[in-house]
Amino acid sequence: MDRIPILRMGPFLLVTIQTDLYDRLALSLEADLVQMVSKTGARGVLIDISAQSIVDSFMGRIIGNIASMCKILDAETVVVGMQPAVAITLIELGLELKGVYTALNVERGMELLQSKITLPTEDTEEEE
Amino acid sequence: MDRIPILRMGPFLLVTIQTDLYDRLALSLEADLVQMVSKTGARGVLIDISAQSIVDSFMGRIIGNIASMCKILDAETVVVGMQPAVAITLIELGLELKGVYTALNVERGMELLQSKITLPTEDTEEEE
Repeated sequence: MDRIPILRMGPFLLVTIQTDLYDRLALSLEADLVQMVSKTGARGVLIDISAQSIVDSFMGRIIGNIASMCKILDAETVVVGMQPAVAITLIELGLELKGVYTALNVERGMELLQSKITLPTEDTEEEE
Repeated sequence: MDRIPILRMGPFLLVTIQTDLYDRLALSLEADLVQMVSKTGARGVLIDISAQSIVDSFMGRIIGNIASMCKILDAETVVVGMQPAVAITLIELGLELKGVYTALNVERGMELLQSKITLPTEDTEEEE
């Protein structure tokens, strides 16, 4: 597999990481995501890591990088589906994922993004 | 990787197939999906195959099976993100994916599911 598919869901992008993020794949994910955010004007990125049962410092760093890049492009990043063992490992490694929001699952992650981002809706639109 | 993650998004389930569906993985996906549909009462299943650049008769059959199983459990199946080459191969193989809805991308697939399924909303609810 060359690249991880990025799904567009309304104003958000969804990425499900199912394989080990080795160097080249991680770099292409970073590039693809940033390009996609820029192209679609997405306001949020959801990264699902429920398939990851182990995590290392490289993966933690990559997620941090992606969040920082998206932030510059005005998109928030939420990591969802983290397994308890992964959370334990991350803290033991000293990686606190600063600047990255987390949520239990995709649904909650989407709610979080919705609340973080003031989307232009009919309710907030002011008439005259 | 043992299993493909199934994401819950409101009344729908989303599966992104990123690896080759070999026998054991396909069977566990079938079992997981059917169990998840039953457990969550999902009304629709979205299968994203945008990462698949090739397809064989086995994969075609598995998708057909999943759709049939979900149908029995009152959930519609939509395959999204099919690459042109995959569509060509499927037809050349004589697999027409009968009973399976298709859509160009996840967004359109979700719209299709919404239209197929009469969800109980405030508008349709009758008072008294």
